[in-house]
Amino acid sequence: MALKSFVEVLPDSHFPLENLPFGIFKPTQQVGEGATTEPRPGVAIGDFVLDLSVIASAGLFNGPNLNNSDCFSQTSLNKFLSMGRPAWKEARSTIQKLLSADEPTLRDNASLREKSILPMNKVEMLLPTVIGDYTDFFSSMHHAKNCGIIFRGPENPIVPHWFHLPIAYHGRASSIVISGTDIIRPRGQGRPVGNSPPYFGPSVKLDFELEMAAVVGPGNELGKPVDVNEAADHIFGLVLMNDWSARDIQAWEYVPLGPFLGKSFGTTISPWIVTLDALEPFACDAPKQEPHPLPYLTEKKSKNYDISLEVVRIKPTEQEHSSVVTKSNFNHLYWTLTQQLAHHTINGCNLRPGDLLGTGTISGPEPESMGCLLELTWNGKKPLSLNGSTRKFLEDGDEVVITGYCKGNGYKVGFGTCSGKVVPAPI
Amino acid sequence: MALKSFVEVLPDSHFPLENLPFGIFKPTQQVGEGATTEPRPGVAIGDFVLDLSVIASAGLFNGPNLNNSDCFSQTSLNKFLSMGRPAWKEARSTIQKLLSADEPTLRDNASLREKSILPMNKVEMLLPTVIGDYTDFFSSMHHAKNCGIIFRGPENPIVPHWFHLPIAYHGRASSIVISGTDIIRPRGQGRPVGNSPPYFGPSVKLDFELEMAAVVGPGNELGKPVDVNEAADHIFGLVLMNDWSARDIQAWEYVPLGPFLGKSFGTTISPWIVTLDALEPFACDAPKQEPHPLPYLTEKKSKNYDISLEVVRIKPTEQEHSSVVTKSNFNHLYWTLTQQLAHHTINGCNLRPGDLLGTGTISGPEPESMGCLLELTWNGKKPLSLNGSTRKFLEDGDEVVITGYCKGNGYKVGFGTCSGKVVPAPI
Ligand SMILES: [Ca+2]
Ligand SMILES: [Ca+2]
Ligand SMILES: [Mg+2]
Ligand SMILES: [Mg+2]
Ligand code: NI
Repeated sequence: MALKSFVEVLPDSHFPLENLPFGIFKPTQQVGEGATTEPRPGVAIGDFVLDLSVIASAGLFNGPNLNNSDCFSQTSLNKFLSMGRPAWKEARSTIQKLLSADEPTLRDNASLREKSILPMNKVEMLLPTVIGDYTDFFSSMHHAKNCGIIFRGPENPIVPHWFHLPIAYHGRASSIVISGTDIIRPRGQGRPVGNSPPYFGPSVKLDFELEMAAVVGPGNELGKPVDVNEAADHIFGLVLMNDWSARDIQAWEYVPLGPFLGKSFGTTISPWIVTLDALEPFACDAPKQEPHPLPYLTEKKSKNYDISLEVVRIKPTEQEHSSVVTKSNFNHLYWTLTQQLAHHTINGCNLRPGDLLGTGTISGPEPESMGCLLELTWNGKKPLSLNGSTRKFLEDGDEVVITGYCKGNGYKVGFGTCSGKVVPAPI
Repeated sequence: MALKSFVEVLPDSHFPLENLPFGIFKPTQQVGEGATTEPRPGVAIGDFVLDLSVIASAGLFNGPNLNNSDCFSQTSLNKFLSMGRPAWKEARSTIQKLLSADEPTLRDNASLREKSILPMNKVEMLLPTVIGDYTDFFSSMHHAKNCGIIFRGPENPIVPHWFHLPIAYHGRASSIVISGTDIIRPRGQGRPVGNSPPYFGPSVKLDFELEMAAVVGPGNELGKPVDVNEAADHIFGLVLMNDWSARDIQAWEYVPLGPFLGKSFGTTISPWIVTLDALEPFACDAPKQEPHPLPYLTEKKSKNYDISLEVVRIKPTEQEHSSVVTKSNFNHLYWTLTQQLAHHTINGCNLRPGDLLGTGTISGPEPESMGCLLELTWNGKKPLSLNGSTRKFLEDGDEVVITGYCKGNGYKVGFGTCSGKVVPAPI
């Protein structure tokens, strides 16, 4: 039974009144008198964007947390994120009420409606936060196992500490880009053959990684770990993420300090942050963990979310249609978001609002649910068929589109898409 | 033959007229009418700080790059760094002239002198830049070799790709702190003994790493690598760095994605950025590289700097004096700063002004020149004697002080100190 908005929301939309994800947009053209094209916060509703800066200026955020706050006249969501769940819940309930079919305030105010509700095709989406630091975890057991077999063989493919802690590495924040941004094929070194010098040139093993990422809300002080049972209060919501990876560069460089240039050329995220509050109806039990985690990782209730990561489409330039490459689900993750965050801070490391915590590639147990080409083609040994073409790894012109949603009763809470097209390396 | 300033500069000072390093400070008390305690750019001269915001307001930066710029009324150096070497050289020559003994402009203007020249003990130093991303390299061959022997044994201690590329990992930007900040001993997991669960508690192998770090000036666009022969134009200068490391946490977590919580609890840098222009008289040839690096890493002229990293002192709480623990030199680095920067961007990764590129631990060839306790005590097997106490790793209360300078004819171009005291882990 879907909630009803006076704004049209098609049955298959990712953005009904139950969702209300937050992002940063700018109008592609000036709308009305005095309007600017500055970046500002918005919420998605159907095929429209509600301009929160206009709603705030109109004095419609009148609860105790948001009344008089300038958090919606910022060019990023960082300030809003720093305010914590009470402010987020207040914003959500105010917006849900304002947009509902039986609430006249906005519905019957033609001038305000026109100023505040913009068609999505008239706006450009930007990165929703200033990302101080970006961390990428490695929390799917199936992914860890497949990579282990491919790189080190079938004996003990998963390193023993994997089951004791959510392994992660620091990623590159500067090269995180918004969905729709072209990805320039990286150049770099690959392992030499025999006594030759190393390979140098455009990566020949360019891959995607199907991931999601948590966006940090309030941070923590340096030296003050976050308790695992309070970690959810530090997470605003989730986005889709494609952690583009150059497997040849990565394989040659990564011992002993981890992935560097094999990853840092670009990471794509989807523009709309779906809040944990919107995801709550889709919470499910996390997998049982054996061995039991240490006390600092032991949760009173260990939660995952049932998010269908339904399609990773690869659309080669020459083809009109795209092919479904894999179907996975967020609930395949072994380590929960809250365990990741508690682990990240246990040494005293400080998180800041807007930081991004990637889940790692979300592979499921079946061959059709593997989250990257490295696994799907078994490092290029079993090419994938795409409507007649085949792929071992990505080719120039290929567009990779990730999408994901939760299936409610009569509605979807979705993430939109996270897409990027591979363009040739510089000569 | 030292240059002469009208400001007193003691013969042993790190900050004569030849140096003029840049930093961000705030007065610890309000000085004079209308003065604020906002952070602002300054330059060190002897035991004093020249307030660049005051000099700029007085209209004394009148060259083509800085005239009318607001770069010295910012709370970080990022804007100034983004302006590039012409602006840096102009600032340097203006300041050198203004402070020289035979230049009356500032010398004979008592009111301006009083407003613009503050004793160092009346200011607090802050992080000089907003650090978007922090990368740590691994460029000392001696360090790589010692770590390899300790962790993997004497056969092939250095991984083969080490000689083909400057290995690095992404570090944590949020926990970079300014010299003088206490370092809270991190808690975390260590390798289990037998079938027990992993160790959990305060790190028992807390270490320092003697490093320097390059501060990035103008960045590069995503997808546009920087040519190795132009890389120096993207480096503003150098600071001292202590990459605190918890060896027990690091050893248990780092395969296959590299160091994470073993490093991210804190990294200390010195406050004054010594410019490449000030270091130029101390340039020396970099070590010969065999095998020859690939063309993108081949420099017309491969340059190091002769910087004595003379003392790493550890001062236990109970002792009055500190002990010299190691003496090293920046010129032990195998990979140059410019090779590091060119490699970092070869995949298209974008750098931004203020980014930090750590060199990695700077160990020399002799046992007395090893840059961390892991090497100096051979992973705790050979405790170090400190005026009667001994140390395998750092204990609570220990203060670690790094210093470094170049020796000129009658003067030093120095970096001041990079210090931090270890305080107990939270209970
Ligand atoms: Ca990943
Ligand atoms: Ca280091
Ligand atoms: Mg990436
Ligand atoms: Mg560190
Ligand atoms: Ni059990």
